[in-house]
Amino acid sequence: MTPTQPIVSDAKRAARIGMDIGGSKIAAVSLDEDARIEAEATLPVAMGAAGVLDTAAGLVAELAERTGRAPSDFASLGVGVPGQVQRPRGTVRHAYNLEIEEMELGELLSARTGIPVSVDNDVTAASIGAAHLMGLDGTIAYLNLGTGLAAGIIIDGRARRGANGVAGEIGHLPIDPLGRPCNCGQVGCLETVAGGMALRNHWPAGGADPGRRLLRAVEAGDDDARRAFDLLVSGTARAIRVLGLTIDPDTVVIGGGLRLLGAPLIDGIRRTLETWEAETSFFAQLGMSRRLHVLPEGSPAAAVGAALASRA
Amino acid sequence: MTPTQPIVSDAKRAARIGMDIGGSKIAAVSLDEDARIEAEATLPVAMGAAGVLDTAAGLVAELAERTGRAPSDFASLGVGVPGQVQRPRGTVRHAYNLEIEEMELGELLSARTGIPVSVDNDVTAASIGAAHLMGLDGTIAYLNLGTGLAAGIIIDGRARRGANGVAGEIGHLPIDPLGRPCNCGQVGCLETVAGGMALRNHWPAGGADPGRRLLRAVEAGDDDARRAFDLLVSGTARAIRVLGLTIDPDTVVIGGGLRLLGAPLIDGIRRTLETWEAETSFFAQLGMSRRLHVLPEGSPAAAVGAALASRA
Ligand SMILES: [Zn+2]
Ligand SMILES: [Zn+2]
Repeated sequence: MTPTQPIVSDAKRAARIGMDIGGSKIAAVSLDEDARIEAEATLPVAMGAAGVLDTAAGLVAELAERTGRAPSDFASLGVGVPGQVQRPRGTVRHAYNLEIEEMELGELLSARTGIPVSVDNDVTAASIGAAHLMGLDGTIAYLNLGTGLAAGIIIDGRARRGANGVAGEIGHLPIDPLGRPCNCGQVGCLETVAGGMALRNHWPAGGADPGRRLLRAVEAGDDDARRAFDLLVSGTARAIRVLGLTIDPDTVVIGGGLRLLGAPLIDGIRRTLETWEAETSFFAQLGMSRRLHVLPEGSPAAAVGAALASRA
Repeated sequence: MTPTQPIVSDAKRAARIGMDIGGSKIAAVSLDEDARIEAEATLPVAMGAAGVLDTAAGLVAELAERTGRAPSDFASLGVGVPGQVQRPRGTVRHAYNLEIEEMELGELLSARTGIPVSVDNDVTAASIGAAHLMGLDGTIAYLNLGTGLAAGIIIDGRARRGANGVAGEIGHLPIDPLGRPCNCGQVGCLETVAGGMALRNHWPAGGADPGRRLLRAVEAGDDDARRAFDLLVSGTARAIRVLGLTIDPDTVVIGGGLRLLGAPLIDGIRRTLETWEAETSFFAQLGMSRRLHVLPEGSPAAAVGAALASRA
């Protein structure tokens, strides 16, 4: 069984659009009848419900033009958004980086574009797209190192969102009772240790986008940067251990903006896992250190996954 | 979709035997063509590979006699064992409470009884049986509070064992770096906080089977017993939180010998979850405190589940 079979078979063979709505831009792709990328487009996102609708509608028009199709030729439009998503209606809640408290995104975007819209959590969408683009089979944990930390879970080729759409939200597992308060109201969540927000808190000198400067600062001997980097490595390894001992995936894919820290990050995570494997035969048999993959730079995984998960 | 459909449809409509091999006894059931229990039998288990084979063969003979069938009338025999199981061959490793280091249980038991044998982890088997006997749909986390602590995971009606058969082994998630050493080689695993072994360590005065005396000791004002009980409650709640934020199940079923602590245990777990739900809306939406069920006393869940998961 290939992972694309159950995912793609959700929809009929038809051209589809997928969008990844982020806090600064919307990345969109058009997939042809064989689920191959035929066009890509990106626009800066305008804030609020109206801004998101305008930007998305503009991208539909642009993809239609580039592919020589009419908008009505697209069977479906899939959208991945941060925040909580209520499927199947496509209600989005608490998407604070879009300045959206609550929005009937599915309904409104469908009315605006004339295309049936499916809305998904962006991490779930990215997990589906990563499996498809990377040709991965079986059970996959896609670990997103973005502003926060969350996993998308694919079991035997099917995305699993859980009874409340909260499956994979391991960023809010408290791991340190003496840790920092988390946005969620708890203390010492995994996300306060590893991820973009944690990095900013642990290394304020790094500014608003510390990931870009972190490795140079570590190399230059900045102790705070080194400590922040080490916490990112160990926290990510802990997240992988949680995924290993719950769903025991065939593959862990590291995605999200911080994956672009590259080899130093991935090697650090792998070494941490290897240390744990050396300490206990129980963890060794899981072999998590050998199951790590990294989503390639520039991969439109979330947009592709949103398109694949969309239904006409 | 009922949970029995995908589980039972693994096998043809035929009579089957299931066995739950524990450290002190083997409990066996015979299921009729409609997956209903038609007979039960239990024997004390003899140690080692030869002892297990003798006891299991004796139970097949007894169930055949009670049901008026020949052993060859049973299409399959499913066995749940503690320790690590390698499916599909049915190799069992590290089943220390049976004094078995490694054993080709599937092959040997099949040769001995003339019935095709499937071997499963006992907690996985119990999760399948609990879903069937309790009529539970969807995604289920079966949390076994036995000597150790582990979960069986059923997603949309199908048991999920993971890439290495380690799915649900949350007892070996380290949660306390200052905690006790665990059998697995790590320190402060969840299993060193909650479960039968943990209870013995935290309350040595309780003897070899502290679960039977714990509540009376707590009521009598025994501070050590109270502390051990509180750790059991909070550790179990933490295990449920891990399951909630990874697989987000429709239902959590508490099984294992310690469930017989009954209402004081379950109420304590529920109150702990409610406290967390009051602290954070994120955890509140999961509603784990309302998703708790308890496997009824005397339920032969593991034997029934092993039978249901067996294949001819
Ligand atoms: Zn949190
Ligand atoms: Zn352990």
